Amino acid sequence: MKQENFILIISSPSGAGKTSLSRQLLKEDSRLCLSVSATTRKIRPGEVEGKDYYFIDIKEYKEMLLNKEFLEDAQVFDNYYGSPKKHIMDKLQEGKDILFDIDWQGAQTLKEKLGPLVVSIFILPPSMSELKRRLKSRGQDSDEVVDRRMERAKAEISKYGLYDYVLINKDFDKTLARISSIIAAERLRFFDFSKFVEDLMK
Amino acid sequence: MKQENFILIISSPSGAGKTSLSRQLLKEDSRLCLSVSATTRKIRPGEVEGKDYYFIDIKEYKEMLLNKEFLEDAQVFDNYYGSPKKHIMDKLQEGKDILFDIDWQGAQTLKEKLGPLVVSIFILPPSMSELKRRLKSRGQDSDEVVDRRMERAKAEISKYGLYDYVLINKDFDKTLARISSIIAAERLRFFDFSKFVEDLMK
Repeated sequence: MKQENFILIISSPSGAGKTSLSRQLLKEDSRLCLSVSATTRKIRPGEVEGKDYYFIDIKEYKEMLLNKEFLEDAQVFDNYYGSPKKHIMDKLQEGKDILFDIDWQGAQTLKEKLGPLVVSIFILPPSMSELKRRLKSRGQDSDEVVDRRMERAKAEISKYGLYDYVLINKDFDKTLARISSIIAAERLRFFDFSKFVEDLMK
Repeated sequence: MKQENFILIISSPSGAGKTSLSRQLLKEDSRLCLSVSATTRKIRPGEVEGKDYYFIDIKEYKEMLLNKEFLEDAQVFDNYYGSPKKHIMDKLQEGKDILFDIDWQGAQTLKEKLGPLVVSIFILPPSMSELKRRLKSRGQDSDEVVDRRMERAKAEISKYGLYDYVLINKDFDKTLARISSIIAAERLRFFDFSKFVEDLMK
C-alpha cells in the first residue's frame, strides 16, 4: 500500500485569510509542508527567511529564472516570485504533501506541469467591504496600495472557477475544518491500493 | 449560492461493512438519504419494507423493468434488484444527497447515466479471512452460500479501480470518519458559487 504525495494550492486575494489558514494547517498537519517561494519583495515584520520566503535580490532572481530553476514564477506589482524546483522535488521525495500559497496564474502553471498531482482551493472573502477592512487593519499598506490590492482582488476572484474547491472564509475555524476535510478526502484519493488488493486476492 | 445535490455510491463485497456504515451515515447526516431499491429477494430479519428495500415479486419486477422504471437494475444470484427512477428524482428535488448501496455494475450504470453527479467509494475488507469470518458470523447463510459470496467478493474487489475512493474497513469508526470527510469535501465541490461571486463583485 503506497501513499502518493500531492500538491495543495491555496489561492485567494490578499486579505482573504490564505496566509493565516496556511500557517494553522502547517501547524496541525505534520505531513504538510510549505513550498517556500523565492521573492524579490522586502521582508515583512514576523516573516522568517527560508520559512516564509527565500528573500533574494533581483540579480539572483534573474539568474535563477535564466537557469530555469523555477517551477512557476510570477510578478505581483513590482515584486517577483518563483517556486524553486529543487526545493519542491526534495520535499516530495521526503514524503511530504506540499502546500502552495500562490495566485491563479501560478496555480494554472502547476496544473499544466504537474496536473494529476494538484488539488486547488480558492478562498473567497465574505464581502468586498470585509476584504478592504482586513487589508486596512494590517496597517502596512498606504491607501493607494490598498486600492490596488482591491483591484487585483477582483481580478483574482474572477478566476475562482478554475479551482477544484471554493470556500468562503467567513469563520476561520470552519474554513480550516473544511480544508482539513478536503485534505483528508484527497489523501484517500491519492492512495495506491494495488499492492494491498494483490495481497488480498492471493 | 446554490448547493447542488449529489449521488454517493458505496460498494463493497458482501460482509465488508457497507450496510452498517451506510446505516450509521444516514443516522448522522440528515441531508443524506438512502436510495431504496426494489428487490425480489426475501426480507431478512430486521429489514423494513420501504426503508431497506421495496420487496416485490418477480411479476411486479418484470412489469417495472418493461416500463423502464429503473435507473439501474441487477441480478445477484437468483434475486433481482432495481433503483426506481421516480423515488430518486423525488429525493433529489427535496434537496437530498442520495446514497446508493449497489455493486460495481450498478455503479457503472449510474456513472454513465448521471456522470458528474456521482461520487463513488469502494470498501475493502482488511483481509479475505476476516471477510469470511464476518460472513459466517451473520449466521444466515449456509457454507455453500458463504463460498459463493467469497467467490463473488473476489470478482467485486477486482473492480476497485473504477471507484473515486477506496477505503479499507479495518476500524469501523475510522472508516466512518473517512467517509464523512469525503462527503464534506464533495459537498464543497458541488457548491455553485456563481451567484455569490456575482454579488461580491457588484
